[in-house]
Amino acid sequence: GDGVYEVVLILNGKLIDLDGHIRRLERSLNEIEIQLSFNLKIFEPIINRLMKMNFLKNGIVYIQVTRGVASRDHKYPKSVNASIVMTIKHINISQKLQKNGQKAITVEDQRWKRRDIKTIQLLPNCIAKEKANKEGAYEAIMIMGDGTVSEGSSSNVWLVKKNQLITREANFNILNGITRKAILKIAKVKNLNIEERKFDIKEMLDSDEVFITSATSIVTGITEIDGKKINNGKIGSISKKLRDYYFS
Amino acid sequence: GDGVYEVVLILNGKLIDLDGHIRRLERSLNEIEIQLSFNLKIFEPIINRLMKMNFLKNGIVYIQVTRGVASRDHKYPKSVNASIVMTIKHINISQKLQKNGQKAITVEDQRWKRRDIKTIQLLPNCIAKEKANKEGAYEAIMIMGDGTVSEGSSSNVWLVKKNQLITREANFNILNGITRKAILKIAKVKNLNIEERKFDIKEMLDSDEVFITSATSIVTGITEIDGKKINNGKIGSISKKLRDYYFS
Repeated sequence: GDGVYEVVLILNGKLIDLDGHIRRLERSLNEIEIQLSFNLKIFEPIINRLMKMNFLKNGIVYIQVTRGVASRDHKYPKSVNASIVMTIKHINISQKLQKNGQKAITVEDQRWKRRDIKTIQLLPNCIAKEKANKEGAYEAIMIMGDGTVSEGSSSNVWLVKKNQLITREANFNILNGITRKAILKIAKVKNLNIEERKFDIKEMLDSDEVFITSATSIVTGITEIDGKKINNGKIGSISKKLRDYYFS
Repeated sequence: GDGVYEVVLILNGKLIDLDGHIRRLERSLNEIEIQLSFNLKIFEPIINRLMKMNFLKNGIVYIQVTRGVASRDHKYPKSVNASIVMTIKHINISQKLQKNGQKAITVEDQRWKRRDIKTIQLLPNCIAKEKANKEGAYEAIMIMGDGTVSEGSSSNVWLVKKNQLITREANFNILNGITRKAILKIAKVKNLNIEERKFDIKEMLDSDEVFITSATSIVTGITEIDGKKINNGKIGSISKKLRDYYFS
């Protein structure tokens, strides 16, 4: 688990929000003291070459940096080179953008305390997602000890209440999603009211709309949580608009 | 981080507490739903063969089981075979058994909620151990949000107070150490009073003796924590006795 990663969306041959992903990767590396001997700007031409070599126009690129090869020890090894792996994969994005809302379940947030670092320690996220999968749901929304929502197993969670957008403030408790940031920016341009604050399950279930954001889910409406319908089971108008704005 | 592991001590060609390690491995696998298609009893002859092939009499064997090779997805893959890796390494155990007590520091316990599962998600443990290492200490003792001690970054923590042994009860908050269990057994045979309960930093700093246990640290006296001397900086008599009993 001693490494960090990013997933970048590729749409029509363009890398979406690459700068944001690279900056976050740099931050994650700093937080766990992995030093690279080169500027992360070199990732862009490498990814472009990967895309060309694979004739890929739509999909994702996965970038992983681990501490490097050393004898097994809890202490950080001295003077090793970090290991970098990049893979790209075709994804039919239009298929991913379901017109119907998706189901979610709530699960206990079992993760460690530094959820702001995008590490490859994803076992609790996988346990949560697999539980959702077994129950026929698209996402598992994680609930902290105090009853508040942190985020989805691989997404940020948003509420709409009386035309106001609510999403948890970015600190150690959640990953500061790149798509989250993009949607915040769009919402500001469009003069939507935004509150960045925590909220609990009850407020979520009682809200007008719920949607999640991530690099691959983009904006996905959540229309049922733990069996309870949100907005009568229909994707809300603000969720729809934000997705349209994101692509325009 | 989607895998579990064990480290077994080899002393004079004998595997110490192998059954206990194999049982715990089986439990860890069950908890994260990794199925093996064979009985874990086959590990013993394989390890013995590894020892013979490497002419190894003293050291450790590392056993790791990960979910298997599949496309990257948070959901568990279907019908994959788990990946198993075993390595053995020579260690001079008598060198490891320092006659002098060791220093420790306290750090925040940042780990996930299921510390009872021995997963390879060791980044928070590594961060803690590296901090100890930088401060010239042998171990980092982890403190939970309520001020109580959970365990060391790679060990269980014990106090001696008026000839009474105190160690945290084994639940989700700590790993139920195999050496911890062995020492509990020995203490019972030797009619020592044992309390399995939580304790806070203050109680730890005020106790007569502090020691840690693990497969490779066995029983190691801690004689200084955060700069404060324990038992005037000397290994206590009960710590010493327990180590002697363990080897007899």
